[in-house]
Amino acid sequence: MDANRKRLDIVGLCGSLRTGSLNGMALRLAGECMPPYMVLEVVEWSLVPPFNADVLELGIPVPVQRIRDRIARADGVVIATPEYNFSLPGMFKNLIDWVSRGVDQPLAHKPVAILSAATGPLGGARVQYDLRRVLLFVNAMVLVKPEVFIGNARSKFASDGQCIDEATRQFVTGQMDSFGRWIAQARALQQA
Amino acid sequence: MDANRKRLDIVGLCGSLRTGSLNGMALRLAGECMPPYMVLEVVEWSLVPPFNADVLELGIPVPVQRIRDRIARADGVVIATPEYNFSLPGMFKNLIDWVSRGVDQPLAHKPVAILSAATGPLGGARVQYDLRRVLLFVNAMVLVKPEVFIGNARSKFASDGQCIDEATRQFVTGQMDSFGRWIAQARALQQA
Amino acid sequence: MDANRKRLDIVGLCGSLRTGSLNGMALRLAGECMPPYMVLEVVEWSLVPPFNADVLELGIPVPVQRIRDRIARADGVVIATPEYNFSLPGMFKNLIDWVSRGVDQPLAHKPVAILSAATGPLGGARVQYDLRRVLLFVNAMVLVKPEVFIGNARSKFASDGQCIDEATRQFVTGQMDSFGRWIAQARALQQA
Amino acid sequence: MDANRKRLDIVGLCGSLRTGSLNGMALRLAGECMPPYMVLEVVEWSLVPPFNADVLELGIPVPVQRIRDRIARADGVVIATPEYNFSLPGMFKNLIDWVSRGVDQPLAHKPVAILSAATGPLGGARVQYDLRRVLLFVNAMVLVKPEVFIGNARSKFASDGQCIDEATRQFVTGQMDSFGRWIAQARALQQA
Repeated sequence: MDANRKRLDIVGLCGSLRTGSLNGMALRLAGECMPPYMVLEVVEWSLVPPFNADVLELGIPVPVQRIRDRIARADGVVIATPEYNFSLPGMFKNLIDWVSRGVDQPLAHKPVAILSAATGPLGGARVQYDLRRVLLFVNAMVLVKPEVFIGNARSKFASDGQCIDEATRQFVTGQMDSFGRWIAQARALQQA
Repeated sequence: MDANRKRLDIVGLCGSLRTGSLNGMALRLAGECMPPYMVLEVVEWSLVPPFNADVLELGIPVPVQRIRDRIARADGVVIATPEYNFSLPGMFKNLIDWVSRGVDQPLAHKPVAILSAATGPLGGARVQYDLRRVLLFVNAMVLVKPEVFIGNARSKFASDGQCIDEATRQFVTGQMDSFGRWIAQARALQQA
Repeated sequence: MDANRKRLDIVGLCGSLRTGSLNGMALRLAGECMPPYMVLEVVEWSLVPPFNADVLELGIPVPVQRIRDRIARADGVVIATPEYNFSLPGMFKNLIDWVSRGVDQPLAHKPVAILSAATGPLGGARVQYDLRRVLLFVNAMVLVKPEVFIGNARSKFASDGQCIDEATRQFVTGQMDSFGRWIAQARALQQA
Repeated sequence: MDANRKRLDIVGLCGSLRTGSLNGMALRLAGECMPPYMVLEVVEWSLVPPFNADVLELGIPVPVQRIRDRIARADGVVIATPEYNFSLPGMFKNLIDWVSRGVDQPLAHKPVAILSAATGPLGGARVQYDLRRVLLFVNAMVLVKPEVFIGNARSKFASDGQCIDEATRQFVTGQMDSFGRWIAQARALQQA
């Protein structure tokens, strides 16, 4: 991969709305661990309203349209999400419910990488497969491996949000390297 | 089951916020199909705010507390939910995310029955297993069988929301009969 | 729980056919960690043939009938299983496919506890939910919590199969205590 | 797609061992519905022994090696499988357990299409997602859409195994067309 290659514009989405979310930290870590030709922008989505098909008939709300446009422009999406009650955080699923609608839905054929952080030892092992199934429905191109589960995450990030666990940093670096290659492959596939 | 038995108070929750939801129709059908000793009240939850752990630290919001109290008082809960993108509607999951928190979470040991209606042929076959896993986490006592999937639901309800398909009515009647027995069993189990 | 209570007869099933299986070790650990009124017998099932509906029409094969009878007699079943390719070991699922057939299928209403051991950090977090769904279908009464995932299991058992990790031993002890209570509750439920 | 294009060699695997399996019929239907440049060969696997890591250490058994080689040579794989107890037939999962092992495992990057037939109305809606997760683990490239679920399959195939339902035939034809394109895309992706 040469230094002159086009920069890849990556949107980061955090599954949690909490300030100081461990998954927000994981997402920033993903940004730090990306190869130099990838640039992460974490996109806020807290203004996205409840999905309601009656509302959709009136048109897509502005905060939703903004995220849709931002995703459509991006070369890829990184999602870091907690697990709530063995599945996706409802509000994050609500974001996907909005994004998934309509003919121009921007997740179609979009490369996506998933990671999750959790205070418990499993690190979100259940939520990732639900998320993969959901992303299957919207035809996203989800990076298969390496999977990243950051268990016992409280011990792996300092209070300022910096990752202090070298192994975690290496896992995420490996995933982001693979994701860069995956984006290149996905592009080739689109052109096939 | 004798005529003098105590009436069972059942809370109905619809997974969709849409007016005229097919699952709202399915929920009312469940109410009609219940044995006389069960009474359904469909409970609105559209005012439940986005779950956010920062908000939770300030206390449980009033609309959430109201639903929690209502569920806590009930003898059972019937959920009728659509499937969005192969999983739970985000907003309905958000409701569960709120209800699930705290030591007095009211779904613990609560009998629950699930049905789903969909315009497609599968009738929600994917969402029900995600919902079961989520309800497992909160220790609800989910009725195992019969399962009810109302596929091609558009053809099974009239424009006024009445079910016009006799087979569907019989399936739901059978499920509600089983649910009445399940509630009795669950009570015995609590006392054991 | 008084010393005179009836002994509970528990069947142990290991999901792996391998000699020296970590899940075999986990199963024996479960036996050691049971309260005195529970007695585990690990049941071999390596002679169970491939399930084939054509074969079933000729009658249930002897090795299958033997396991069915053994499960039918038991007060509960403990399953310790590895995860193969993100789901159940095929041969162990084949055993359940056989056991699940027929009107007298012995898993119906049978209390079941699940644990899993794995060399990786997740400890089988994916397989357990598939197994729960399968056991749902056969109407087993699966203990909800505590869940036990023995991650990095190679470091937690000595070469003679003894558990050398005190935390693991405590988790399993807690689960077996809960399982004893669950069996009592399930019995009350049958009688309701 | 021109008439001179290279013929695609497709391996068909049926999830059921039963003679007269509905999924065997579905598989042959897939063969009939393929565009002329795709050729299906249904491959038997009934001689594959129980997976056991101890056996694996002695080398891969001949019937397994034969299937591995056959898959490795193929341009794609079509799987038609029933659902047993809400998940994969154990023996078919056992086949995948064998195929998945070793560095040269032939499902890696192999294009795969899935369909399922069932006597019930859901047509195998649960098993397909477990199968997708398993194939994710082995890095197969599974066709996302269209999904094909053949519900009430008994009424859609004649006693000689021929499909007598035009809609089903069209669904399968659409899927096989997409699968042909998917194989071309997958090849481009390998070369990227």
